[in-house]
Amino acid sequence: MNTLPERGSEMPKGLSNSQIPHGFRFAALHCGLKKSRPDLALITSDSAAAAAAIFTTNRVQAAPVWLCKEHLRQSRSRVRAIIINSGNANCCTGPEGLKASRSTAASLAVALDCEVREILVCSTGVIGAPLCVEKILNSIDALKEGLKSAASNFEHAARAIMTTDTRPKWAVRKCTIDGKQVRLIGCAKGSGMIHPQMATTLSFVMTDAAIGAASLSRALRMAAEPTFNSITVDGDTSTNDTLAVLANGQAGARRIADGSSGYKKFTAALTDVLRSLALQIVEDGEGAEHLIEIEVRGAPTDRGADQIARTIAQSLLVKTAFAGADPNWGRIIAAAGRAGVDFDFERVDIWLAGIQVCRRGREYLFDEKAAHKKMVEKRVPILVDLRSGTGRARMYTCDLTKEYVHINASYRT
Amino acid sequence: MNTLPERGSEMPKGLSNSQIPHGFRFAALHCGLKKSRPDLALITSDSAAAAAAIFTTNRVQAAPVWLCKEHLRQSRSRVRAIIINSGNANCCTGPEGLKASRSTAASLAVALDCEVREILVCSTGVIGAPLCVEKILNSIDALKEGLKSAASNFEHAARAIMTTDTRPKWAVRKCTIDGKQVRLIGCAKGSGMIHPQMATTLSFVMTDAAIGAASLSRALRMAAEPTFNSITVDGDTSTNDTLAVLANGQAGARRIADGSSGYKKFTAALTDVLRSLALQIVEDGEGAEHLIEIEVRGAPTDRGADQIARTIAQSLLVKTAFAGADPNWGRIIAAAGRAGVDFDFERVDIWLAGIQVCRRGREYLFDEKAAHKKMVEKRVPILVDLRSGTGRARMYTCDLTKEYVHINASYRT
Repeated sequence: MNTLPERGSEMPKGLSNSQIPHGFRFAALHCGLKKSRPDLALITSDSAAAAAAIFTTNRVQAAPVWLCKEHLRQSRSRVRAIIINSGNANCCTGPEGLKASRSTAASLAVALDCEVREILVCSTGVIGAPLCVEKILNSIDALKEGLKSAASNFEHAARAIMTTDTRPKWAVRKCTIDGKQVRLIGCAKGSGMIHPQMATTLSFVMTDAAIGAASLSRALRMAAEPTFNSITVDGDTSTNDTLAVLANGQAGARRIADGSSGYKKFTAALTDVLRSLALQIVEDGEGAEHLIEIEVRGAPTDRGADQIARTIAQSLLVKTAFAGADPNWGRIIAAAGRAGVDFDFERVDIWLAGIQVCRRGREYLFDEKAAHKKMVEKRVPILVDLRSGTGRARMYTCDLTKEYVHINASYRT
Repeated sequence: MNTLPERGSEMPKGLSNSQIPHGFRFAALHCGLKKSRPDLALITSDSAAAAAAIFTTNRVQAAPVWLCKEHLRQSRSRVRAIIINSGNANCCTGPEGLKASRSTAASLAVALDCEVREILVCSTGVIGAPLCVEKILNSIDALKEGLKSAASNFEHAARAIMTTDTRPKWAVRKCTIDGKQVRLIGCAKGSGMIHPQMATTLSFVMTDAAIGAASLSRALRMAAEPTFNSITVDGDTSTNDTLAVLANGQAGARRIADGSSGYKKFTAALTDVLRSLALQIVEDGEGAEHLIEIEVRGAPTDRGADQIARTIAQSLLVKTAFAGADPNWGRIIAAAGRAGVDFDFERVDIWLAGIQVCRRGREYLFDEKAAHKKMVEKRVPILVDLRSGTGRARMYTCDLTKEYVHINASYRT
């Protein structure tokens, strides 16, 4: 029932240089968009990498999102570098905003001696405030100087993309393609404005596997579904969401063909990286104290199960009950009931943290104190069995605490 | 732009006996479902009243909701009394729950010497806990003894239906039908689990106007649309929502015919009562400090405007920004962007508390301190003009404070 791999933090403990995929370099620094913390990161590949990306579905899209889409079209998905700033989303900033992203890409292309279209530009932070692009342009030489393939540089970059995150998020995996090892490493930022509508937060995965852009795109979309598209923190969708994967082939392994066993292994490894990053984001959800895994079974269809799991995951009453470690299953069944899915609630069984609390839509006598104690733990699974079919789905969310309100009532002050 | 009738509380200040519609009586007491506060209320009409009601759209419905629907069918919408308990929702309580509601109605019918089908039973409180119906049955004689048409009795009943409400909610209106005055009085409970999906909370309106049940039902549905169906506190929908209107004709005014000028006047007065109750609910939203009115104009369609207004009204990031009185309009435009409506965000204008903060999708230089000061007020209007059509809509919501989390993390403890 509980598929969470382990109790405690998803956060990897340490990173060694040998885990960095070949041919990638990283740098980060403080350019002045934030008061004192690092706010500018650069990721480069020594050779042009095949790229795949998923962007926000919000109608309001930031200038850098527009530019990334344009560049991927122009370069036929070949990318040499990604530059990311935090502290300002460069969204709702008009023609000047787009110009700022363009000049960032142009300056970086000169510095790296590559085509402008091979550069991706990403921004995150406050929406609607003009971006002081000079701070970025003035830092490009220093960024380039700092580029290294060292693990510490990667960690530094993972920190520089943070906004309200309390810790950097990364994940590493290896897999073997025809006897040759390839590496994947990913980092992500995000702890608020988290909701699944294709892509959430800024997330970047680098791999030295060899794979075509079209195959990579298919693998990314498959891997995003049960991971980034199955988490929610607050139901809000950012204007800047970007999830990008770069594959530069520098491990020297054979090129991965669609549908091959290597493709399956690679997609599984990519899914693992994304799942770890996604769960780290929920664990670090603004003010969150609990990671909640919601499994819905026995729904009329998978789609129905998904709708119910999402509705439970977004219910403020469910999320606040978890903040109080209160086994108030009535709120769970009430949220399920308003999901727009037809089911007979008098067949429903519910388990909270492994303890059955509801049987056939009614209270199942349970030890409230024992349930409360289990709900105090870092990770809490909910299982809802509708007993009305074979549809199933899984979602991840976090509790809603006073700290979420505190962070977001005072974000700009 | 700001249609809120006045600054300050919607809460009416005092009530006189002459405002009570003729032929209605009220009583309330503490029967023991709650620790110490009144938890049982009774509303009666001396003669059978025409009734109309709207119930929750949740798939999970409480036993009393089932029973009310059954009784309205059986009695052809003639009602003599409504009995309401707080402290327990009698939901997810199986056949015993339905039996409890049935025996409540049966006992009350004996006491009042009327048909069982002329009784409505409503419950509100915790979901899933068995209802100790004996506490209600043992109190029916005392309730009946206490019945009076006095304003103080009505106020007492309005208090007895409260759950997390911090104050009772009521509204009164008069209107003249063919030269004869008729009175309307309504009370409501609710401050959490508030969301528009046809009916919210428990709300009861009594009138001594004469009108047929079918006309009354049409008037109620029309009046609920811009009022109860245009408010949200937390997006959750209760399993017990009931909004009922009783019209007993005891004012002696002419019977109101569909489409007559009297019908229009009556519907307007009913809408006024519901609007006042609905705004009182949002003002008293769990932990709320601000009542926020969201007006969307210039959308491609009214439906599109409505979707955008609802999405803004439900955005946790918007609601927490208001808790901090932060004029962070970027969150408003970002919420609009994810509403699933096609519009060009570079045409959007936004006003916050009467101050323009965004013009053509970009920051419009404004005095942040002045805006902050205006947002500290009790009522804050948002106006979003998409400049992409003639569609418009209006929604009411409240800010999300730490107090909401506090109330809901500890509701059952």
